Amino acid sequence: MTASVPGHSPALGVAVLGYSFMGKAHSNAWRNVNAFYDTPAVAQRLLVGSDRERVAEAAGRYGWSESSTDWRSVLERDDIQIVDICTPGHLHAELAITALEAGKHVIVEKPLANTVGEAERMAGAAVRARERGIQSMIGFNYRRVPALAQARSMIAAGKLGTIRQLKLAYLQDWLADEQAPMTWRLRRESAGSGALGDLASHAVDQIRFLLGAEVQSVSATVHTFVTERPGPAGTEAVTVDDAAWATLRLDSGAVASLEVSRMASGRKNALQIEIYGSGGHLRFDLENLNELHHYDTAAPPELQGPARILVTDPAHPYAGSWWPPGHILGWDHTFTSQAADFLRSLGSGASPEPSFEDGLEVQKVLDAVERSAARSGATVDLSLPTMTPRS
Amino acid sequence: MTASVPGHSPALGVAVLGYSFMGKAHSNAWRNVNAFYDTPAVAQRLLVGSDRERVAEAAGRYGWSESSTDWRSVLERDDIQIVDICTPGHLHAELAITALEAGKHVIVEKPLANTVGEAERMAGAAVRARERGIQSMIGFNYRRVPALAQARSMIAAGKLGTIRQLKLAYLQDWLADEQAPMTWRLRRESAGSGALGDLASHAVDQIRFLLGAEVQSVSATVHTFVTERPGPAGTEAVTVDDAAWATLRLDSGAVASLEVSRMASGRKNALQIEIYGSGGHLRFDLENLNELHHYDTAAPPELQGPARILVTDPAHPYAGSWWPPGHILGWDHTFTSQAADFLRSLGSGASPEPSFEDGLEVQKVLDAVERSAARSGATVDLSLPTMTPRS
Amino acid sequence: MTASVPGHSPALGVAVLGYSFMGKAHSNAWRNVNAFYDTPAVAQRLLVGSDRERVAEAAGRYGWSESSTDWRSVLERDDIQIVDICTPGHLHAELAITALEAGKHVIVEKPLANTVGEAERMAGAAVRARERGIQSMIGFNYRRVPALAQARSMIAAGKLGTIRQLKLAYLQDWLADEQAPMTWRLRRESAGSGALGDLASHAVDQIRFLLGAEVQSVSATVHTFVTERPGPAGTEAVTVDDAAWATLRLDSGAVASLEVSRMASGRKNALQIEIYGSGGHLRFDLENLNELHHYDTAAPPELQGPARILVTDPAHPYAGSWWPPGHILGWDHTFTSQAADFLRSLGSGASPEPSFEDGLEVQKVLDAVERSAARSGATVDLSLPTMTPRS
Amino acid sequence: MTASVPGHSPALGVAVLGYSFMGKAHSNAWRNVNAFYDTPAVAQRLLVGSDRERVAEAAGRYGWSESSTDWRSVLERDDIQIVDICTPGHLHAELAITALEAGKHVIVEKPLANTVGEAERMAGAAVRARERGIQSMIGFNYRRVPALAQARSMIAAGKLGTIRQLKLAYLQDWLADEQAPMTWRLRRESAGSGALGDLASHAVDQIRFLLGAEVQSVSATVHTFVTERPGPAGTEAVTVDDAAWATLRLDSGAVASLEVSRMASGRKNALQIEIYGSGGHLRFDLENLNELHHYDTAAPPELQGPARILVTDPAHPYAGSWWPPGHILGWDHTFTSQAADFLRSLGSGASPEPSFEDGLEVQKVLDAVERSAARSGATVDLSLPTMTPRS
Repeated sequence: MTASVPGHSPALGVAVLGYSFMGKAHSNAWRNVNAFYDTPAVAQRLLVGSDRERVAEAAGRYGWSESSTDWRSVLERDDIQIVDICTPGHLHAELAITALEAGKHVIVEKPLANTVGEAERMAGAAVRARERGIQSMIGFNYRRVPALAQARSMIAAGKLGTIRQLKLAYLQDWLADEQAPMTWRLRRESAGSGALGDLASHAVDQIRFLLGAEVQSVSATVHTFVTERPGPAGTEAVTVDDAAWATLRLDSGAVASLEVSRMASGRKNALQIEIYGSGGHLRFDLENLNELHHYDTAAPPELQGPARILVTDPAHPYAGSWWPPGHILGWDHTFTSQAADFLRSLGSGASPEPSFEDGLEVQKVLDAVERSAARSGATVDLSLPTMTPRS
Repeated sequence: MTASVPGHSPALGVAVLGYSFMGKAHSNAWRNVNAFYDTPAVAQRLLVGSDRERVAEAAGRYGWSESSTDWRSVLERDDIQIVDICTPGHLHAELAITALEAGKHVIVEKPLANTVGEAERMAGAAVRARERGIQSMIGFNYRRVPALAQARSMIAAGKLGTIRQLKLAYLQDWLADEQAPMTWRLRRESAGSGALGDLASHAVDQIRFLLGAEVQSVSATVHTFVTERPGPAGTEAVTVDDAAWATLRLDSGAVASLEVSRMASGRKNALQIEIYGSGGHLRFDLENLNELHHYDTAAPPELQGPARILVTDPAHPYAGSWWPPGHILGWDHTFTSQAADFLRSLGSGASPEPSFEDGLEVQKVLDAVERSAARSGATVDLSLPTMTPRS
Repeated sequence: MTASVPGHSPALGVAVLGYSFMGKAHSNAWRNVNAFYDTPAVAQRLLVGSDRERVAEAAGRYGWSESSTDWRSVLERDDIQIVDICTPGHLHAELAITALEAGKHVIVEKPLANTVGEAERMAGAAVRARERGIQSMIGFNYRRVPALAQARSMIAAGKLGTIRQLKLAYLQDWLADEQAPMTWRLRRESAGSGALGDLASHAVDQIRFLLGAEVQSVSATVHTFVTERPGPAGTEAVTVDDAAWATLRLDSGAVASLEVSRMASGRKNALQIEIYGSGGHLRFDLENLNELHHYDTAAPPELQGPARILVTDPAHPYAGSWWPPGHILGWDHTFTSQAADFLRSLGSGASPEPSFEDGLEVQKVLDAVERSAARSGATVDLSLPTMTPRS
Repeated sequence: MTASVPGHSPALGVAVLGYSFMGKAHSNAWRNVNAFYDTPAVAQRLLVGSDRERVAEAAGRYGWSESSTDWRSVLERDDIQIVDICTPGHLHAELAITALEAGKHVIVEKPLANTVGEAERMAGAAVRARERGIQSMIGFNYRRVPALAQARSMIAAGKLGTIRQLKLAYLQDWLADEQAPMTWRLRRESAGSGALGDLASHAVDQIRFLLGAEVQSVSATVHTFVTERPGPAGTEAVTVDDAAWATLRLDSGAVASLEVSRMASGRKNALQIEIYGSGGHLRFDLENLNELHHYDTAAPPELQGPARILVTDPAHPYAGSWWPPGHILGWDHTFTSQAADFLRSLGSGASPEPSFEDGLEVQKVLDAVERSAARSGATVDLSLPTMTPRS
């Protein structure tokens, strides 16, 4: 006997703004979330982009019912409850605030904004919307890497004792070639910053996520190794950083080092995290995202050594929703799990995490990095008001 | 402006038979294939299973339009062109042959069948169907692991020189616990064999895939470590192997060793392949499926060492359809790529690979393993006719 | 105030027979043993070799008081108590038996002999000598790798539960080049066998050492990939194996696989051991000899993973005699530790291990490998008397 | 025929000052150097230490002819040409300068001294002595790790293109336990600094060694996590750093990050070096000191990946003097190779490297780290004269 599958009505309608790299990743998440997680049902209603033909083609490929070039059409539609913003950063503030005010739940890709000022306005809008039951979240998808969620849980349970040192790096190499061409990502006006906003934002969010601690002060250096690149109209100046280094003091008493670069030849997507506590250490590398290395000083001395945990067991966060142990997940699965967490929060009335306020905190740290670097590394105290407001 | 996404008509209609582990994985592939690959469009028409409620629920989750408990309903439907068989192995022959004769393109999950006899009948049916333009494929999904496809291409290009030795293992541990309960997978009548059909089939297929060589003779041992397990009606005898070992001589002159086990504590899904040639070696482990290790004896002596290639570059097979370099794939992506290859073949009129005949060759090797083991390891020559036909 | 260092009288006098690779390694051990271990003192009295000039030069470099070309001079000297035999294998039996009968303690490098017959005679002589307080040992130096001694201790303590499977390989590549020239090691008359005696002997000894179990039966294959090589007088036939494969059933119920090769391009000295038990697994690779990987199924599921133990802690065997934790040992340190164990036994009156009888047991297994291979893999039962005596 | 080994006359006589950890390591080097390297012959004449019984016992174990408690006795002896100083750092200046002035060749363990002032005086004495043919060297033994010497040679040959970023860490954990007792190493007056002088000195030397570049400016942070520890007379304040972080700008245009700690639980002796250039990267970890990882951007894209070079080939620096490929070296072998390099320089009349001037340069960088840290991270320019002289 054959039976039609009943519509998931009333499914939550989703619109994604943006259809390139992040739009593809978020579309993938919405298309798959109901297959793996028990959440409110979703419907892929609308994909929005600037190029009519390309957004239409993308909508077809990625499972959307409709496409549009006018993002404001989203605001009026009753069948769209969730707006997921995957545009370049300088558009985040306007889109997110408008959508929240129109009563839509909003997800914004990281970083929250290009400036602290924009981020503050967005956080304010999120607080006001939340009071009306309208939720929001910033898309730090690596919070949904099972290994990192497992790490957080171990730290919270005290497995590492007192955390003293964190060593973070996020290394890529797509700019290592001096002839790599100019893009909007290398201009300060459009990108805000370079490796800092792009890569350091993830690392700073992980510090806060893993430890539940706040950055108190920052001593930092930034550098641009290749100062000119071939642009569409001849050689053009690169106006953002290629790499950055920072030492961060946390309110917990721990000290974190941070190094980010898009010039690290041979590193493709290496978010590397090491956490040292009185009870052991944890080590993670995004290029092997299914693995977490755990050293436990409570083990007998002759048995101590970092255990390579393959984080694919039902006992691990998220893993049980996917495949049997040893059947590894890929990078894109983190977005699906992120969508699931967001939907679960909507379903239960809880506020999703990380919030816009979390995004704002990250933004403040990135800002402090730039201010310290401008003062040749002198420490910037985040608990003090900013003396020289940035434009 | 908003535009509806036009239907992909005439999309190829797909039905999947089976909704548990493999059914979930195959459903995932059909749901996603058009988002990542340029292939003929597909429509997820029907999911078939034995339990009405559970198959209906699965169909809803996995994106199917309809569900059914009657697989024969597939045969009459003009809107279903592809039948994808994910049932237990003893049903493969009947389902596949019937579907082919009804003019459906067919995919069958590995192993092709439980016996050489069944496999031969299926291969015969595939040959006849192919003459009528009806295609078929066996689902050795690991052929679509980018690292293994890359390995095959390097071997074909002569990068490894003369291949001499292959060292293969497929190790899991879900039976390591003596109290793990009895299942149909541990009964010879339903499962055919144990680790042999389940794990060794993949390894033998890889030998043929990577080298394009045939197994000529086999010396083997099989063993059951835990001979009784708790069953639904008390203690029950395990009638399949827990582990198997074989030395295979290939027609190319190479020698391959093979070890498979479901008792290897701490190994979750470790298909490990090492290939040694006069020009270097390759090493692979499915638990790190995005990596291929390559040793090149042509490098200067002081620079020689196995390179850990992260197989996520656009220059690598399949990888360019997914994400930027360093954004790793998971286990399930191999099924999506497998579906893409199948659809591309249909689109171009070519015969998909691996064929049922490939599945039959693997089956013959597994059969030789059991015959050699029954003769206490004495070599079985695959080029000779089988003396004692197996039941 | 300055003080002369008093002579270690009465130090045990040592003579080493052979001054090339193994002679260099053993000389290094005698020169250093008293610096790291509390043992009876030794004096490097005599180095013996066939070439007068070269042995004299070696003696000077390696710390010996005298050199000689006449090994029999050792027999008469009262100031030499220990004879350490590092000659090619076909000389072992005569030298060792004569020295034992002359009342010298004897160490023989592995393998004990080239044939089971010789090994039996040597073991007999060792038994008789032991009754007179004259001790002997075979030099399986890898028993003194701290990681392997640690492994043995963990297995003995039951950390791995019931051992089911062992996976051993010893891979080198110095013959991978087809133009590598002929040597005495590639002629059966001088070398006895190829990779088998050279490499498999170590692996078989480790099985016995680690588990305390005996090999009961063997199914095996041997192969010579390059059958002719350039010799001093033109092309010459290679008459020993390049590689060998075996499946060994142990009297404990475990099954071991073994693969050895000198053709494995890119493997330099890879003695790889994996041991799977009901309680976890151990993994070792001689190319990283300071590491032991341990998987413990008793850990909570979310924390399970192979721990990379850096075996340099005072809690580990041998390590405390050397350097602080993390200061790794090299290959040659195993010989120094071996010398220390031998001297400690002499000091305490205990019989050193492994004994000549241990060497004989290994020889019997290697012999069974060859006999099974000659019968195309049919199992040879070691508990049965050999039907066809080998020449 | 037996022949006495002729004395190595006139061998160079050596005295080592200090008999604990470093004295043991240096004694080992002198005992073994002639066995592995063709250098002028040495004789282990005298071991000096403060405790008469213990130094006598150590001298006996480590192969010395005599022991003494009076280091000045060295100065008058004509049979001692080399003085090797392994005492605590605050004694280095006096011992080294006196010995040089007495016409002895001098080796000093790192760091050169506890202050820049002492280091300057020592460098001055070394320059003056050199004019008289009296040589000196500072013992940065890791320059003799084959993998690091290989790295230097690759960088010099341009294999890495333009070097942009270096990432260095030296992590140990012997102070991770808060109850680890007070020692002289934790008091500023005796140790000068903490992890900085102990660990960062090696890392800074490697930057200079590997790149041939000088540190131009420093932004740094230091921290003491455990400020009190149990001492012999009750709780005592720790007056040196537990950890330090620095960003170093080099005169080559490269930027280096540096992190050192003795609190990094689970890291035993992890000097980790990563070097990123336009042509690839290199990676090294002292806990696996036989390995060098090399990524080459000149390889075809599909073959790019870090190669794990096992640095044991005759083509590699130092390796050919030891054992065949794959037979790994230990930590202590670096001291033997260091002694060999020193002796070769003496033999050829060349000045050994690294010189006291090299040691002074490292000291200046460590000093700049402390000054920057005292200014809350503000950059200290090494090319400028020190404004505020340190006590």
